[in-house]
Amino acid sequence: MPTDRKRVIVVGAGFGGLAAAKALGSRDDGSPVEVTVIDRLNYFLFQPLLYQVAMAGLSATDVAYPIRAALHGRRNISVLLAEVDGVDVAARTVRLDDGTALSYDYLVMAAGAHTSYFGHDQWATFAPGLKDLDDALVIRKRVLTALEGAERASDPAERQRLLTFVVVGGGPTGVELAGAIADLSRDILAVDFKRLDRKAVRVVLVEMADRILTPFDPPLSERARAQLEDLGVEVRTGVRVEAVDAGGVRVGGETLHAGTVLWGAGVRPSPLAAALGVPLDRAGRVLVGQDCAVPGHPELFVIGDMASFTPDGAETPLPGISPVAIQQARLVARNILDEVRGFPRQHFRYFDKGFMATIGRARAVAQLGRLRLSGLIAWLMWVFVHLWYLVGFRNRLAVFTNWIWAYIVSRHGARVITGRPMSPTPGGSQSRASAP
Amino acid sequence: MPTDRKRVIVVGAGFGGLAAAKALGSRDDGSPVEVTVIDRLNYFLFQPLLYQVAMAGLSATDVAYPIRAALHGRRNISVLLAEVDGVDVAARTVRLDDGTALSYDYLVMAAGAHTSYFGHDQWATFAPGLKDLDDALVIRKRVLTALEGAERASDPAERQRLLTFVVVGGGPTGVELAGAIADLSRDILAVDFKRLDRKAVRVVLVEMADRILTPFDPPLSERARAQLEDLGVEVRTGVRVEAVDAGGVRVGGETLHAGTVLWGAGVRPSPLAAALGVPLDRAGRVLVGQDCAVPGHPELFVIGDMASFTPDGAETPLPGISPVAIQQARLVARNILDEVRGFPRQHFRYFDKGFMATIGRARAVAQLGRLRLSGLIAWLMWVFVHLWYLVGFRNRLAVFTNWIWAYIVSRHGARVITGRPMSPTPGGSQSRASAP
Repeated sequence: MPTDRKRVIVVGAGFGGLAAAKALGSRDDGSPVEVTVIDRLNYFLFQPLLYQVAMAGLSATDVAYPIRAALHGRRNISVLLAEVDGVDVAARTVRLDDGTALSYDYLVMAAGAHTSYFGHDQWATFAPGLKDLDDALVIRKRVLTALEGAERASDPAERQRLLTFVVVGGGPTGVELAGAIADLSRDILAVDFKRLDRKAVRVVLVEMADRILTPFDPPLSERARAQLEDLGVEVRTGVRVEAVDAGGVRVGGETLHAGTVLWGAGVRPSPLAAALGVPLDRAGRVLVGQDCAVPGHPELFVIGDMASFTPDGAETPLPGISPVAIQQARLVARNILDEVRGFPRQHFRYFDKGFMATIGRARAVAQLGRLRLSGLIAWLMWVFVHLWYLVGFRNRLAVFTNWIWAYIVSRHGARVITGRPMSPTPGGSQSRASAP
Repeated sequence: MPTDRKRVIVVGAGFGGLAAAKALGSRDDGSPVEVTVIDRLNYFLFQPLLYQVAMAGLSATDVAYPIRAALHGRRNISVLLAEVDGVDVAARTVRLDDGTALSYDYLVMAAGAHTSYFGHDQWATFAPGLKDLDDALVIRKRVLTALEGAERASDPAERQRLLTFVVVGGGPTGVELAGAIADLSRDILAVDFKRLDRKAVRVVLVEMADRILTPFDPPLSERARAQLEDLGVEVRTGVRVEAVDAGGVRVGGETLHAGTVLWGAGVRPSPLAAALGVPLDRAGRVLVGQDCAVPGHPELFVIGDMASFTPDGAETPLPGISPVAIQQARLVARNILDEVRGFPRQHFRYFDKGFMATIGRARAVAQLGRLRLSGLIAWLMWVFVHLWYLVGFRNRLAVFTNWIWAYIVSRHGARVITGRPMSPTPGGSQSRASAP
């Protein structure tokens, strides 16, 4: 075993951090680097399917995988379940919440993003976001409890309020949640609730921009809107959320009395970005150079949702999506290994795999290079891509069985309410937060 | 549809309540009874496998099934997610927590039992019991967090404390938990934790009686003990727990410094038993006659863990196990349907199917009539019986896949820590509580 191994710390085990660790890992003792992966959660989360956990289609463990198991067998990797309190960039140390300081030769920051309420953090209590498993279980509990409450309600106005669901944000998460609520209510209301009329269920999707799914071409946005409306979702674009409270949400001067409000409107980088004390972009992301390192700090890499990477010649930074994080992670890992072995660094080049968003069961939109797809074919492609990338054979098999089964019988078998507090709890924000 | 249908209320949807509801349910409109099933949780729980959820072998939804889905298609059944506050036996009404009173012609009380700390409810915070999904997720979190803490610990004494697990109670739950912790640590410690030695893991099972598994014959208790010791579990019988706190547990004058203490020592009937205001036995269970009804109240049936049923000629009441609850439920349902149609009631006769307890993976003991089994053959029988009874095809398939997979690779794929509060939370008791 080389005695002068370089110490690499990876903060965060999302798509980026985990890919970096895997690429740095070695199954024998010959690696020139020694890697410590730190996360405050003990699992990797396959976030694209998280909305299915929230909507009782999948179990929590179908979309999550223990980090230790994911990195199993890589002899130069240690995993630490810990909260990172800060980084001393000058001293090259990472400070943990218990006061421990770990020194590094290379640091890969991949702590991701949190739900953003655009300065209205008090809304988090009433409109949970969807970033980790606990968020998903909170949302599942809210939605199912609302249906149960409606079944019990004797007052028609209260019943209607409980059957009204507002989703804020017309990005992929909001679109997926709105479509899935429509699916859920169609599937289970008619058969399992005696007193509820599924036509009474109202799902409203609210988006500030003039169309939903803004990263997509306008025609695909239109197709997505039409598919949502097909499912019975009211889509309201160009309206701004003015207030959220226990009774519902005020948008464009009108109050929507809703039993459930879900937040899919925005994200902000982990507070660790600001805690580094290096230049940030307007969205609070760390500005990085073409090698994904902070200018002036070649040992400090920032990747994924925390990073602001603008490709040479481009005008806007890359979007905060998993393919960017994964590709950056692999480049950074390769650069570290190359540099340790005396070779020069490469610049990052993003290979654009396109965008997809699913709209309920059996509908989707996809924009892949010049290709534009919508409907069932887009959905089948979505299923294929997502199963393909899902970590771990066991999960892949279990999710596949659940999907097939759910598709045939539409029973939403994961409709199990867990979590003790029945009152609204502070939801989405701060879920993966780590810094002061 | 008959207009003079009798109103039947079933309180609790565990093994007893669900079996009663199924037997009273009808797929056409001709039933002479109209049934309302009330539970404060929205799921039926297959409790015999709950310890597997606690030990990260199965997902929460593998052992739970929505009550509405379980009773799907029975046209004379309504399900209510609600907490029962009390029963007015004279007025024949059930009072819900929101003040609603529901009147009944027949009442089937099947609210089950809770964890009992024998007058030391303050221990619940430090030693969670195992009665519902939230309990199981709390235990999973504690056990996994202890291992993660041990991996981080620099102080050897603190590391040893975190690697010490004490299980209180040598009944089936305690034995299953102790065996499963031993399995879990053997499976994952060596491969996924760099700094931990699995030989340092200490699992202690504490039982007040002079042998474990007292419902079994003494030779089987001995076999169970030997199998546990094979797995590395220390079994201490004839010792009493004197104190439990954050640092561990004091038994027989000695303090065991333990990071995790689990409680499998006893149960007490739901507080609704006492709230009925009818005679109870010494354990607080409702005394019922040979038809499972409260003497003097032929319309009030009590079944399962809440009931004290002593068969004609026997000296002790039947034990609180699921076959008793299920068989009582079916008899009660038949008696109600018969009586409504003008036929006389039958007395309950228990068909004893025996006892089983599993000890880790691939070991068990079983006592079935005159048959005594232990080891792998008993375990295979245990697996077969438990899969057979598990509700719902989907769950059965998913659990089976998980088991096969877990058996082959021993990876404990459900090792996912959810639930926000990291500090010890009040655990087992009151989990299915419903009354003052």
